Parts: sequence; C-alpha cells; structure tokens
Amino acid sequence: ARPKVGYFYSGREAMSFFTNQINSMKVSDIKSLPIVVDEQTTLYDAIVTLFLEDVGSIYVTSEGFLTGVVSRKDFLKNSIGGVDLNKIPVGVIMTRMPNIVTITPEDSIIDAAVKIMEHQVDSLPVIEETVINNKHGYKVIGKISKTNIVRVFVDLCKNN
Amino acid sequence: ARPKVGYFYSGREAMSFFTNQINSMKVSDIKSLPIVVDEQTTLYDAIVTLFLEDVGSIYVTSEGFLTGVVSRKDFLKNSIGGVDLNKIPVGVIMTRMPNIVTITPEDSIIDAAVKIMEHQVDSLPVIEETVINNKHGYKVIGKISKTNIVRVFVDLCKNN
Repeated sequence: ARPKVGYFYSGREAMSFFTNQINSMKVSDIKSLPIVVDEQTTLYDAIVTLFLEDVGSIYVTSEGFLTGVVSRKDFLKNSIGGVDLNKIPVGVIMTRMPNIVTITPEDSIIDAAVKIMEHQVDSLPVIEETVINNKHGYKVIGKISKTNIVRVFVDLCKNN
Repeated sequence: ARPKVGYFYSGREAMSFFTNQINSMKVSDIKSLPIVVDEQTTLYDAIVTLFLEDVGSIYVTSEGFLTGVVSRKDFLKNSIGGVDLNKIPVGVIMTRMPNIVTITPEDSIIDAAVKIMEHQVDSLPVIEETVINNKHGYKVIGKISKTNIVRVFVDLCKNN
C-alpha cells in the first residue's frame, strides 16, 4: 500500500484523529486511588472515611475481594432513616457483587465513560482478577469517576 | 486573503479543530433543568426532593433570586449530626451567595468544565441577571454538572 504522505483536512478526519487519541488512553492512565473499607465497618466509620477522603463512593472488600460499593446517596438514605449508624455494618446497605459495574485497567477511558453514563453511577471500581487462598475473585486496584473523565476533557481542551 | 483550500493534516490541527468545535458549544446547548427549593424548605423536605429528582445538588432561592446551593454532602454531614431535619431550613446549611460558583448560558462548556474542576464542585447553576421589584440579582435557569460534561465527551467519541 502507498504511504499516505498528506491529505485534505476535514472535520471528519480531525474528529477521528481525536477519537483515536482518546481511544489510546487507558483506564490505567487516569485512574485514582480507591478508598476501600471492610464489610464489617460501621456506617458511621464509613461515612467518616468518606468525609476524610472527600470521595463520593467507597468500595467494600471482604478477605481482599471486592464485594460491594456504597455511595454518598446510600449513606444519606440510611442516615435519615433513623438507623443506628454505629451498629449497622456497610455490608448491609452496600450494592453487592455481581450487581456492580466495574472496569479493567486495559479498557479505554471511553468504555469507562460510556459505562458511567449507561448505568448512571458516579464511579467504577477498577478491578483485576485474583486468587487468594484458592478462592477466585476480584481485587480493587483503582477508581474511575466522572471527575477523572472531566479532568481528561479539560486537559485535552486546554492543551490545544 | 487567499482562501485555504487544503493543507496537511496533523495532530495539532486535528486537536485544534476539535477544541474549536468544543469551544463553539455553549452552556445553553447542554444545560439540564435545575432543581430549586425555597430557603424556608426543611432539610427533610429538601432531601426528599433530592431523592425524588435523583440529583446531587439543589439550588436555593428566595423571592426568585438564587441565594444558595446545597449538596448531598451537606445533607449527609447534617443528617449524621443529630439535628432535627424537620426543623432546620436549608437556608441554614447551604453555601450562600456570593460564595457560589456560577456560569452563564453564553459561556462555553470548556469554561464550565474548568470551573467545576478548579472549584471542586459537582455542578454549577446557570444564571441570568434579573430585576424583581427593583431588586437586582440572579435567577437560576439551568444546571451544568459533571454528568453533562461526561455526556458530551461520550457523544463526541461515539459519533466519530
């Protein structure tokens, strides 16, 4: 095949160049540190963690495996419900596996953004398959939120 | 000036084409409906509104003017504090003007995204100057959140 040495510039080409560039950006390039608590953590302690870390959602693990996700919305719902926040563990109110939308480090950030929009979630745990004591599951190695996506958008726009 | 009839395609040009396209998108093109309550609304009623409308923040008005913003985080902080949610009005806990980051319909969505990131807020009220009973202020005519920005990002990537 002849090499392309130059061709006419059009919006379509510019946009597909842009999309290719975005497509080459992986979840692993932009992920944040996840905030993780154990299933036995009380709602009160988990809420304190949420405020100290200033995050919108917390991931929950048991024996090293991802078992759930709990959001500011879940906490608020339970806080106004009159439950004793010091008695109930997060494991009781969290969204439990397999009902969690996840992403892997190799996925593109577009896949992540699409999942966030389609499932209407604030963030996705970035996971990796793992085996602990002969048990198979997923460990949490990161987090992708709307904030990460908006940051990419801003960076792309500002740098050009 | 000679018209440009075609030039070599490069990443830089593609990216600036992209940025120009984004720059031409205004806040008014992508804004959502704002959820607004009066300053006298109790925390409990405001939280119910938050859940019914499934939003992360609510804008607060008094006599038609924007006076405050209250977020899921503000509500959660107060819900665990043991205050009587049925007695305290949102006016007491909201972030009050002029400490609110706002945007206008004519601003570009890049400006909106930059403000959201720089001020670490979930959303911006879209405002317009107004005069009511000889008083000057701002009315809320929309809302731009991280969700709106991520949606633009997804639409741009999917359509190309």
